[in-house]
Amino acid sequence: MMKALEIITKKRDGWKLSAAEINFLVAGYTTGLIPDYQMASFLMAVYFQGLDFQETVSLTAAMARSGNVLPLKDLKRMVIDKHSTGGVGDGISLALAPLVAAAGLPVLMMSGRGLGHTGGTLDKLESIPGFRTDLSSTRALNQVKKIGLAMIGQTTEFAPADKKIYALRDATGTVENISLICASILSKKIAAGIDGLVLDVKCGNGAFIPSFAAAKKLARTLIIIGKKNGLKIKALITDMNQPLGKAIGNSLEIAQALEVLRGNGPADFEELTLRLGAEMMVLGKKTNNISAAKQRLQTLIHNGQALSKFYQLVKAQGGDLARIPVAKHKVEINSPWKGYLFSMNTKEIGLVATLLGAGRQRKEDSIDHSAGIILHKKLGDPLRLGEPLATLYYHQAIPIDELKKRFIKAVKSKAIKPKNRPLIYKVLA
Amino acid sequence: MMKALEIITKKRDGWKLSAAEINFLVAGYTTGLIPDYQMASFLMAVYFQGLDFQETVSLTAAMARSGNVLPLKDLKRMVIDKHSTGGVGDGISLALAPLVAAAGLPVLMMSGRGLGHTGGTLDKLESIPGFRTDLSSTRALNQVKKIGLAMIGQTTEFAPADKKIYALRDATGTVENISLICASILSKKIAAGIDGLVLDVKCGNGAFIPSFAAAKKLARTLIIIGKKNGLKIKALITDMNQPLGKAIGNSLEIAQALEVLRGNGPADFEELTLRLGAEMMVLGKKTNNISAAKQRLQTLIHNGQALSKFYQLVKAQGGDLARIPVAKHKVEINSPWKGYLFSMNTKEIGLVATLLGAGRQRKEDSIDHSAGIILHKKLGDPLRLGEPLATLYYHQAIPIDELKKRFIKAVKSKAIKPKNRPLIYKVLA
Repeated sequence: MMKALEIITKKRDGWKLSAAEINFLVAGYTTGLIPDYQMASFLMAVYFQGLDFQETVSLTAAMARSGNVLPLKDLKRMVIDKHSTGGVGDGISLALAPLVAAAGLPVLMMSGRGLGHTGGTLDKLESIPGFRTDLSSTRALNQVKKIGLAMIGQTTEFAPADKKIYALRDATGTVENISLICASILSKKIAAGIDGLVLDVKCGNGAFIPSFAAAKKLARTLIIIGKKNGLKIKALITDMNQPLGKAIGNSLEIAQALEVLRGNGPADFEELTLRLGAEMMVLGKKTNNISAAKQRLQTLIHNGQALSKFYQLVKAQGGDLARIPVAKHKVEINSPWKGYLFSMNTKEIGLVATLLGAGRQRKEDSIDHSAGIILHKKLGDPLRLGEPLATLYYHQAIPIDELKKRFIKAVKSKAIKPKNRPLIYKVLA
Repeated sequence: MMKALEIITKKRDGWKLSAAEINFLVAGYTTGLIPDYQMASFLMAVYFQGLDFQETVSLTAAMARSGNVLPLKDLKRMVIDKHSTGGVGDGISLALAPLVAAAGLPVLMMSGRGLGHTGGTLDKLESIPGFRTDLSSTRALNQVKKIGLAMIGQTTEFAPADKKIYALRDATGTVENISLICASILSKKIAAGIDGLVLDVKCGNGAFIPSFAAAKKLARTLIIIGKKNGLKIKALITDMNQPLGKAIGNSLEIAQALEVLRGNGPADFEELTLRLGAEMMVLGKKTNNISAAKQRLQTLIHNGQALSKFYQLVKAQGGDLARIPVAKHKVEINSPWKGYLFSMNTKEIGLVATLLGAGRQRKEDSIDHSAGIILHKKLGDPLRLGEPLATLYYHQAIPIDELKKRFIKAVKSKAIKPKNRPLIYKVLA
């Protein structure tokens, strides 16, 4: 009989595990036959010894198979998804999903909630009063059939092993392992039954993986593991050395997404939305080149179809944009400098937004949907003394002076303009 | 607030933990505030990153403090204990405890049960019908006050953290770490309130640690950690490349212990008993040199006082030596060779005894107190064709022919006599 302990010690001692061994462990853990403590010691052994590509493919497949698979095949259309490794102000999905849905690519997006310095698409959508994200997968699928788009929360129905393993990693110091990260990201997507995936792997001081080299390694691993599990896949490595766009916070990012869909969004936000959308279009065989895809998407913005798709989505899921909350208080932060905005501690700015009420420090925290930050300046912008740098929005009693100070401390100015950083560092396939 | 997760990741990343951090973890785990899975990931992180001497001292102290401490001080006498890392046929305690008790050193020995290829003192004592090992510590202490000797099982009252952590290590592949081994051995002894400890660290093919170098490292670590925790301590590194003495199995080892106490024991068994006893006498300040101590112990054997002390012990704990069980079946293994007994796979011989019924393969197995092996030959003995090598004793239906074959396969003969190995390789203090 295969025993969990033997598999743990085999990995601990640096040996390669078979697909059957990995499957035994994942299936046993999902059903509760293998206890948390054995999975915890296995995960720590993996942290130190690693998993090779073949083991990671097996782990991803085992996790993807641990629950139901969504019958997306019923659509008889290619379904392409997007996943970002997370950053500050990364509300791209809010604009991207209706945009590509308007272009005829069906979208069933399952998103998560925010934690720490980053937000979550689910929280952002829920800042629209009435918007329900807890649709059953059947209802969501019917909505995709009808209007081509649904945006819902992750259910435990798909890849339950991932949910269970992720919670355990979070409590046992085993989050930061590339194979475990890959398997977590991809198993959910595979269980969702998608055909293709465009990855937005962030690097920089607001990303979970600051270094470009590490981000590239993660992107390459995701591509290899995804392909071996039958996905069409492409990865962009993009900059997270400043918040994306100008809004950080849930209803603020909804408002910004509406502006993007009207063609009035911040340049970086629009650029990334169009590029990711174009990659999805190409993977989904809607067009065969990126620039044609971008043009098509721009047309859908200019003719209002992308915006109507967003309105359709909000209506279908019960939301009321007219009642979107506005923060009770706001305070401006003015530039104490003359010069150029030289650098930002993006993670810290994300944390300031969290502390304003926009995010959660612990999972059980509640959030303030209207709280957050609007940036008036981005990296490289000239600064004049006293000119508005940012506006902080909040609602509850908050040590606002302290947060203003933290924001200022997170920003550096210099007399010289910083070198322009590309937004998209690299595209891998 | 100190958090378990922070301590786990700190150790995972190779940082040194403070005594307060280790104490927080051990105390929290003992009371159940820290769950199994966090302790499991911590133990695996320790497996890879290790603990330094100071951390191991802290861990040992924290575990020793996790429950009650036995009021051995009430005796107003020095109490010296002996601990063996375990081997095949190692029933030394059975003769040693009454012997040193007869010499006036009070002995309160807490022992464990056998598992795998090794036996346990508790099982051996319980092969004496009626012998009770489950005395309360208070009753055991009173018995020591009265007759100078008690031999009981480990209770959860002392060092409960050790019991809980040991069970978890056993299930999570984190047994083989020198700091965790040290803390486990010493925390129980410190909680038992002893003044000094003589360690018998086995090495060879029947020991848990086969290599001399690793055994020496363990011995040195035990000495350092023990001393820092206030123990007088000495360690012998002894040979386990063949079973100790001639008997393997519970009632067979009781019978052998009686022979040792009568002065008729196997030479190696007697040599080690006298040496360990003499070291205990010196640590306990009964004499100030080893040879004087040995002489005193030999006198106690020859004048019958050691044997009467054993009888006193058995009587005090309800045992009846007259009813000691005898195996229903026995079968002789005869030498298929002419030459010299050159080597033995000691672990395999221990396993054959276990399979005869003398031991447990899993913790929940029951044992056959009369089963086991009597060796007629030891390493270096000349062998004649057809001469008895060993006798196997058993009771239940057992695939005896297969076990005979396994025994034969575990023994090697050669035409030349092997070099004499010392029984005691090294004495460390």
